Amino acid sequence: MAESLISSYKKLMEKAKNLFILQSAAAIVHWDMETKMPPKAIKLRSLQLAMLSRIGHKMSTDPEIGGLLEDIMKHPEYERLNAVQKRNMYLIKKHYDEQTKLPEELVVEIARQEAIAVDAWKKAKAAKNFSMFKPELEKIVELKKKAAEILMEVKETATPYDALIDIFEPKMTAETISKVFDELKEDLVSLLRKCETAPKQPNISILKRKVPVDIQRKISKALAEFVGYDIESKEAGGRIDETEHPFTTGYYDDVRITTHYYEDTFASSLFSVLHEGGHAIYEQNLNPEWIFQPVGTGCSSGFHESQSRFVENIIGRSREFWIYFLPKLKELTGNIFSDVDLDTFVHAINQVKPSKIRVEADEVTYCLHIIIRFNLERDIFADKITVAELPEIWNQSYKDYLGIEIENDSEGVMQDTHWASGLYGYFPSYALGNIYSGQILAKMEKDLPDWRNQIAKGNFQNIKQWLVKNVHSYGDLYDPADLIKKITGEELSVKPYLNYLNEKYSKLYGF
Amino acid sequence: MAESLISSYKKLMEKAKNLFILQSAAAIVHWDMETKMPPKAIKLRSLQLAMLSRIGHKMSTDPEIGGLLEDIMKHPEYERLNAVQKRNMYLIKKHYDEQTKLPEELVVEIARQEAIAVDAWKKAKAAKNFSMFKPELEKIVELKKKAAEILMEVKETATPYDALIDIFEPKMTAETISKVFDELKEDLVSLLRKCETAPKQPNISILKRKVPVDIQRKISKALAEFVGYDIESKEAGGRIDETEHPFTTGYYDDVRITTHYYEDTFASSLFSVLHEGGHAIYEQNLNPEWIFQPVGTGCSSGFHESQSRFVENIIGRSREFWIYFLPKLKELTGNIFSDVDLDTFVHAINQVKPSKIRVEADEVTYCLHIIIRFNLERDIFADKITVAELPEIWNQSYKDYLGIEIENDSEGVMQDTHWASGLYGYFPSYALGNIYSGQILAKMEKDLPDWRNQIAKGNFQNIKQWLVKNVHSYGDLYDPADLIKKITGEELSVKPYLNYLNEKYSKLYGF
Repeated sequence: MAESLISSYKKLMEKAKNLFILQSAAAIVHWDMETKMPPKAIKLRSLQLAMLSRIGHKMSTDPEIGGLLEDIMKHPEYERLNAVQKRNMYLIKKHYDEQTKLPEELVVEIARQEAIAVDAWKKAKAAKNFSMFKPELEKIVELKKKAAEILMEVKETATPYDALIDIFEPKMTAETISKVFDELKEDLVSLLRKCETAPKQPNISILKRKVPVDIQRKISKALAEFVGYDIESKEAGGRIDETEHPFTTGYYDDVRITTHYYEDTFASSLFSVLHEGGHAIYEQNLNPEWIFQPVGTGCSSGFHESQSRFVENIIGRSREFWIYFLPKLKELTGNIFSDVDLDTFVHAINQVKPSKIRVEADEVTYCLHIIIRFNLERDIFADKITVAELPEIWNQSYKDYLGIEIENDSEGVMQDTHWASGLYGYFPSYALGNIYSGQILAKMEKDLPDWRNQIAKGNFQNIKQWLVKNVHSYGDLYDPADLIKKITGEELSVKPYLNYLNEKYSKLYGF
Repeated sequence: MAESLISSYKKLMEKAKNLFILQSAAAIVHWDMETKMPPKAIKLRSLQLAMLSRIGHKMSTDPEIGGLLEDIMKHPEYERLNAVQKRNMYLIKKHYDEQTKLPEELVVEIARQEAIAVDAWKKAKAAKNFSMFKPELEKIVELKKKAAEILMEVKETATPYDALIDIFEPKMTAETISKVFDELKEDLVSLLRKCETAPKQPNISILKRKVPVDIQRKISKALAEFVGYDIESKEAGGRIDETEHPFTTGYYDDVRITTHYYEDTFASSLFSVLHEGGHAIYEQNLNPEWIFQPVGTGCSSGFHESQSRFVENIIGRSREFWIYFLPKLKELTGNIFSDVDLDTFVHAINQVKPSKIRVEADEVTYCLHIIIRFNLERDIFADKITVAELPEIWNQSYKDYLGIEIENDSEGVMQDTHWASGLYGYFPSYALGNIYSGQILAKMEKDLPDWRNQIAKGNFQNIKQWLVKNVHSYGDLYDPADLIKKITGEELSVKPYLNYLNEKYSKLYGF
């Protein structure tokens, strides 16, 4: 390849590398805020994070990046770049165009309004009064519409809302999502009814038994060991800390998860560690040769969620996992669960029950929560409904989909912080993750037909290696639609996920 | 004041503020490395820290700073700036001149050679072989000499070594230090002989009693509460973590200390928490109006050490503190110390005994360790001795000053990492801190004659307030020589510290 091409590409990648280094440092500062920071430091911390974000923005809009991109793309030997190099070019250009096209005043105004809206949301939620939140929500929606219209041009999407979806799920569209979600909804509602009316119902009282926090910490360690998330050895690249809302953060050799421990809901920490552990092993097992390159990141929010839900639900809520882990749990918890048998336990942790709150939802109802939000977002951004109408439509949807009566908006439309925080287009990822996980499972079952037996023996190694090879190591080499096809040979499809659910829950509930 | 002057000054202070914000963020990333980071992350972390340091260097050498400094200093109304504003100008200019005059290649070469020298030092120390360290030490000394010569011109000091001292103890000179250290040395050696030959000797076996780490953590909390270092409330601005080498880091509302817990040397964590607590309350009680201004930082390394040694030794090793705290200690430790009486305990924690290792030294011998190192540094930088001669002179000095035979260089000239890390001119601060603490004590005794009774009752409040008012709140408004005069009305003098030591140890040892 021509010297000039190699040299420009190297320079560009050096700039990308610097951005990854800065952002991974900022992630540590953010992690510290959530886990360790003395409370008094909050004002100082917001200044620190704002500064790091400003520096990051300056680095990613550096005009030299634009120049290098042009030099490389117009170079007569451009075609000699390999697929990874071309993907890096594509991802850098996409990010650069987005970052440079959004006017700085709009970005600043959105950030300012997000802070105001989150504050108003907190107060309105506490007061159970949507009208306190409404004017601020209207403003943030208007600002996001403006941004979406600009991004639509850069990203060449069909609608402004598609441009927002694209941030989290590249090239995915509301049209495609609507199609698969409609299909999903119908089957889930029917499955839900079957579970609700089945004669065999779970005894969930065992999940309310008190498990001391110290013991829950030991359970977390055992789970981390099971998924191969090293937090203890001298080569450990992870750690578990405690926050109200569990999350995963980090980059390659420093990927951290958090959980929360409540004495009377031990299963909450248990499944959150498996969930975040799924995210963590994805980040840890990205292709190490691609560190500091755009291609060396997770594929999309939906793909990330596919990995966390895979480990949490498909593995962690399987009967086979508990064949292995229930004796361990009994060992770790003294006599707390000594009288509990496998089937009782497995049915309890897989109880299907409509609830008002998404984050507590089971596998069957979870996507219904998401579909409701997606429909609202799509219609808001298409100007089909207004912010003022949200509570009414929300409550009606919960009645229709889940048979649930919402009594006040704090447990309804104001339950999530996402909209106040300006996160639009993100909700679908949660359900897409489940859909991907079903397709990935179907393919894995062909390659590893014995996987359930392996889990029953406490062996997650082969499954993990399969995930690393077939999912993690691809990083961001493909857009999600291409990646799912690369992995499974199929287009996006809800069938495998529905098959998995139907099979699992018909056995559990005996219908 | 003229608009143009106010505007330039504001712009300059905004630049200073940004630098403080960035550096305080970098301090968090560094703290994380020392306390929480998964071991695998070390390579990534060094890239992150190098980048933050590079950004900081760029910010502090921004040519706009030079322009603003000139605009302000040449402004016809410059004299109308108040004392604080002028001090900020002085400190920014000093820092800017130093940062811009040192050639970047030299800075990079020093950083590179420091890393190599630290690595060589570790290996040589493990192998007890100075010759492995010597060539790398020679290189770092040569590079530091080059830097010192450049800094000498900027700082207008009499010698290159004075320019290095000035980094840590502004305007202090080797000449002044030599004078006070000679005086100090003579008296300390004589005091040491008296203690060694006194009939009354301490029983230190009680300090070897095992105290479980959990209990030591509780002791740390009690000590933090005593010094008013809040680590627990919802307004807490501090926290205690664990590292091999205790340290303090942070800025204003986020000041963190670390300690280490060894079951069989409980006193080590106890006094390190008091020591770092002394540093921490200094940082926390800088004038809050001066946050993000150069004047709003500690005065010097020596002054910082005066505060840590004051709390650790003058307060923490006083008989009166233990009148209050020994019953607490007994309460916290069950029956471990139930048979120990006050005088036995107080004499044990104040044992005077020459040792090879500085960090373990008592109040009487500590400064002798420092004086030995200072003499060597001064003579190296004056080309009076060579790196090759260091071990021999070191060992001879330990014999002369402390009556100690050094058996190998790992417990001799290679015990500290400072020289490998390029820290020259820093050692004197440790002893200057003690000297300042003696002068500060003498003044405080006049203002608070009752202070010992207050400590015996567990009341540190008035003393702390006195320190805040007379030391902490001055920040960096004065150079250390001026500050000690401002506080005490006296020039730098070893007499108060020697009086304090003679009085204390004659009582303890009964001579």
